[in-house]
Amino acid sequence: MPFEITDIFLENLTTLINSKEEKKISSLFSDVHFADIAEVLEELSFDDAIYIIKLLDSEKTSEILTELDEDIREKILKNLSAKEIAEEVGEMDTDDAADIIGELSNERQERVINALDDDELAADIKELLSYEDDTAGALMAKELVKVYETWTVAGCMRRIRGQAKDVTRVHSIYVVDKDDKLVGRLSLKDLIIAKSDQKIADISKAKVDAVNVKEDDEEVAKIMAKYDLEAIPVVDDNNVLLGRITIDDIVDVLKEEADKDYQMAAGLVQDVDSDDSILELTRARLPWLFLGLIGGVGAFIIMEGFHTVFSKYATLFFFTPLIAAMAGNVGVQSSAIIVQGLANDDVKGSINSRLFKEMLLAALNGAILAIFLFLFVWAYKGEINLALAISVSLVVVIIIAGLIGTFVPLFLNKRGIDPAIATGPFITTSNDIFGILIYFMIAKLILGI
Amino acid sequence: MPFEITDIFLENLTTLINSKEEKKISSLFSDVHFADIAEVLEELSFDDAIYIIKLLDSEKTSEILTELDEDIREKILKNLSAKEIAEEVGEMDTDDAADIIGELSNERQERVINALDDDELAADIKELLSYEDDTAGALMAKELVKVYETWTVAGCMRRIRGQAKDVTRVHSIYVVDKDDKLVGRLSLKDLIIAKSDQKIADISKAKVDAVNVKEDDEEVAKIMAKYDLEAIPVVDDNNVLLGRITIDDIVDVLKEEADKDYQMAAGLVQDVDSDDSILELTRARLPWLFLGLIGGVGAFIIMEGFHTVFSKYATLFFFTPLIAAMAGNVGVQSSAIIVQGLANDDVKGSINSRLFKEMLLAALNGAILAIFLFLFVWAYKGEINLALAISVSLVVVIIIAGLIGTFVPLFLNKRGIDPAIATGPFITTSNDIFGILIYFMIAKLILGI
Repeated sequence: MPFEITDIFLENLTTLINSKEEKKISSLFSDVHFADIAEVLEELSFDDAIYIIKLLDSEKTSEILTELDEDIREKILKNLSAKEIAEEVGEMDTDDAADIIGELSNERQERVINALDDDELAADIKELLSYEDDTAGALMAKELVKVYETWTVAGCMRRIRGQAKDVTRVHSIYVVDKDDKLVGRLSLKDLIIAKSDQKIADISKAKVDAVNVKEDDEEVAKIMAKYDLEAIPVVDDNNVLLGRITIDDIVDVLKEEADKDYQMAAGLVQDVDSDDSILELTRARLPWLFLGLIGGVGAFIIMEGFHTVFSKYATLFFFTPLIAAMAGNVGVQSSAIIVQGLANDDVKGSINSRLFKEMLLAALNGAILAIFLFLFVWAYKGEINLALAISVSLVVVIIIAGLIGTFVPLFLNKRGIDPAIATGPFITTSNDIFGILIYFMIAKLILGI
Repeated sequence: MPFEITDIFLENLTTLINSKEEKKISSLFSDVHFADIAEVLEELSFDDAIYIIKLLDSEKTSEILTELDEDIREKILKNLSAKEIAEEVGEMDTDDAADIIGELSNERQERVINALDDDELAADIKELLSYEDDTAGALMAKELVKVYETWTVAGCMRRIRGQAKDVTRVHSIYVVDKDDKLVGRLSLKDLIIAKSDQKIADISKAKVDAVNVKEDDEEVAKIMAKYDLEAIPVVDDNNVLLGRITIDDIVDVLKEEADKDYQMAAGLVQDVDSDDSILELTRARLPWLFLGLIGGVGAFIIMEGFHTVFSKYATLFFFTPLIAAMAGNVGVQSSAIIVQGLANDDVKGSINSRLFKEMLLAALNGAILAIFLFLFVWAYKGEINLALAISVSLVVVIIIAGLIGTFVPLFLNKRGIDPAIATGPFITTSNDIFGILIYFMIAKLILGI
């Protein structure tokens, strides 16, 4: 089943494009899924991609456009007229149509919407564009199957035959009252099993999960994942049915969210992928590296402050990379556990009890590691005091690093800031500095310098 | 709509449990979704949770059991007899039933399966248990709606009324030939729109996506996400229809996968959450910390090897935390981009072209950072040679760190090892050591020591 883009396929296609064999190209793509065609276009030169888009019929190209990488889509849309875009958009589901029009400049948005044949679609798209990003409203589609509670099963079947044609997938049929307020739902299965003279109100389920149009999209994703929903209706403050969100959109939200957290943990400030330009990648990478540089300069200043210790205990200085690495690693581990717990809503209990637990945990880990380090330094350098000073400092550094790693994301979360920002370079850098400072202070104390 | 667990609710519930008010407890839960009841049980004492499980009817408790945290479920199942478990499992979908029975010891598995009333269910569960973990077979359910290609629409409607009762959600109706080989699919919508005397073969779509029962579950997730599928049929090597996988299971696979990658990047070797015991958390955290310790000892040995330089250029040593941090950060950034690209199948081109791009990128980032460091050291210490030595080394270290970060995940991926393991502590630690070694070597060269 999986379609593979081979070199031979691409070569073949390019030859056909060069000789403008329109029929052969169309038939080459006739059995290929639009998601695969999108991948093929991403491999072609820009002119060839435009040629294909203009060649295939809009029923297919509209789907291809929704699947394309945003950068490439932007370029292609620039090469289409407002009328051509309107034609593509006219074939799309309202949510995809709004997403794509939303990517255009304000002035082009206006022109494309005006070029739409279908006034209802134009109104729907305008409505969807009016919702804020990352809300249920921005995610939902207007397509749904809606019946009135007073209808009978037979009447309902007759009418949804009409409505269902426009809706790619019918998960649920939503039941509304005369004011279009959501009062229940039923499945196609319920409808098929019911007798034809039953009233909709009698066979529908009154309890229906819905989300408010202003709800955050990540919250919608959590609700749908938790309750295993495949579609959820979206209502306004008066419970009037506005649209529905389907699980395939949620899969995208979850993937984006996971990618974003992973990138933040890795110290990338914006969404990049490996094919982006060197300039874009630099913009994503340089800010955290710069923070790391500042941190390193901080560590330098601290170490220089202790330079008089060096004549007697040079070894202390040779262990600073170890101390910094351990402080960073412990901090990242503990913050990652908290960040993930917060994302899954299962961080319970007070901040204090969390910190206490982390202290015990870090003390245990620290003690185990310190024993090994103690034995190594003692065996290698033969100085028991030095070994003791380094290993005791290590335990304290690990405990404090763990506490910082636990506290910072909890604190950010309380302040309404995304705690994921706390993992990665931020924690590593601050723990480097604190770790080295604490290390020298404690070592000095123990060695009595 | 969202059900909130409040302190008052829990207090109220505990009082009812203590006075054994069975009716009141049942009615308290009557309108609560099983996913919410599962969360309530996780808040209760273990005895109280068992009490509730035994009190509520198995239709509800079977759903609750599937939603419970694995640790708590394990404890609860230990307190139920094989017959009681069989009763719960009898109410579940086959995929959930197999998952839960799979968590029991082999001997208990046998006893629970023998205690099932329904021989067909027992056979289905045995079949599902026989598939390897993380394959389509382990993920699929046996419930599906299947019709023969020779049936008419009317006959089909009649018969699927029976089958559909057992299937929670009907996404697609699968069409098979007389040997149960998958030949097409149709939607309930197609069936409703069709005329009753049409043949199934005439209205079904012959092109149907399916996955092999041995396919990796992450691959299934990719296919379903790419093609926006809500369910996919699972077939054996002879194309015989065995079961189907629904998108809600895929949502779980994607979440688990994202969590696993995030944890690997953070240096956690097993799946833990913040509520796990200190011992479990230690087991997850200690291995990578130990690697960090070894790395730190390596850095110590390198620095000691350069200790004669110290008398003249102590400042060099004070910048090792900066060098190590930058090497680590750059390595994590570049490996994260590759790991994510590999996960999304969009790393194209040869390893060499990747490495060349990373070299240019790292050189650009490194040069920008080095200029700042050069100016700082020059201004602070007034030694232009020293400033030059440190900042040139920084550029080289960043380039090499970027190359290692790019190469290692690509290499692991080629070898069939999960590249996600390369981000986090592994890259950080190796880059620390290489970074410090290169730094001193280059600095020595430039300073002519």
